[in-house]
Amino acid sequence: MTTSLTAEGFPTHLAPIDEAAQAALFTQARTVNSFTDTPVSEEELSAIWELAKWAPTAANTQPMRVLFVRTPEGKERLVKHMAEGNAAKTASAPATAVLAVDTRFHEHIPHLLPFRPEMKDALEANEEMRTGLGTYNAALQAGYFILAVRAHGLAAGPMAGFDKDGIDQEFFPDGRWRSTLVVNIGHPGERPWFARLPRLEADSVVSWA
Amino acid sequence: MTTSLTAEGFPTHLAPIDEAAQAALFTQARTVNSFTDTPVSEEELSAIWELAKWAPTAANTQPMRVLFVRTPEGKERLVKHMAEGNAAKTASAPATAVLAVDTRFHEHIPHLLPFRPEMKDALEANEEMRTGLGTYNAALQAGYFILAVRAHGLAAGPMAGFDKDGIDQEFFPDGRWRSTLVVNIGHPGERPWFARLPRLEADSVVSWA
Repeated sequence: MTTSLTAEGFPTHLAPIDEAAQAALFTQARTVNSFTDTPVSEEELSAIWELAKWAPTAANTQPMRVLFVRTPEGKERLVKHMAEGNAAKTASAPATAVLAVDTRFHEHIPHLLPFRPEMKDALEANEEMRTGLGTYNAALQAGYFILAVRAHGLAAGPMAGFDKDGIDQEFFPDGRWRSTLVVNIGHPGERPWFARLPRLEADSVVSWA
Repeated sequence: MTTSLTAEGFPTHLAPIDEAAQAALFTQARTVNSFTDTPVSEEELSAIWELAKWAPTAANTQPMRVLFVRTPEGKERLVKHMAEGNAAKTASAPATAVLAVDTRFHEHIPHLLPFRPEMKDALEANEEMRTGLGTYNAALQAGYFILAVRAHGLAAGPMAGFDKDGIDQEFFPDGRWRSTLVVNIGHPGERPWFARLPRLEADSVVSWA
């Protein structure tokens, strides 16, 4: 990443990623709807979190949690809560991640933000702020997670269509984790995607001041 | 990205990104708090959205919007709404992005999701669903945006500490865009970051089924 360092060990320059990496993460990467039966190992899945975890969150709170579903029994429990259009592809994926928010993420603050441990109590006392911070930052981390799947040479198939309460009761019965997004993970199968949908033009998205 | 293609033009294999790209995006990248005075051009800033736009959103809705603040006048209008600890670094950054959600993002659905244009009316009629979908997916895109800044060899300094209502009244007075995150952008300056804060251990984050 760095070409040279200051005497204090800081970089003087940051390097961009190359075109192959841009393609793998952004420009050529596609949401995958069909998978080969090549398995994805526990090590490969663990490596996704090990990469995604480094990207930043507000006050270092890291509220996202991940349930990896790999076993046939786990898959059966998951698929019945997926929307009709998402069930078959979820069943066919070698692994599926249920991304969730830990509603009590603030309990980790004394460890994660050691110079501001009192933020734990402030969030305990303010449910609205706690929920807002957790929801926003878990979603931010979901973005990192999807790109980390791709960074490892795996295909991601994120899906918002599922019965959240059903999944939460099935897998998180104590109520602490709440599901937010389900992501199929594997290698692209036959005709894995449709033609790409349009992106907004910059003049609908970007403004200047 | 791909090593070979099927007769239909689909890849048979996806390649991981290399270690340098992993370092630039995740493992070595750090939130930057001081910047050199090297400018960041309009072309460089535009290229961030042009990369981030390709990553997926639910129903291709793309609800995130970006205001790039570069001029001295724009900076002055912005800095007064930043929290005390974020004002000086925002003033020193050559550019700052205000990431926002377009509360009427669903108006673009007939163009963005041409096979399901009726989703626009369903979201118009259901404010709770519309707000939830917009908020979640704009945050997901903020995650992509931060990594896209880094992908271009620029440093990102995301900040949640600012007066949202103040920024919205200042820059988005018609009420359609609502600010969610402010990201300083530039090249790392002197002692640009502190020691890295801890990440959660995998056994606090990851579970299996």
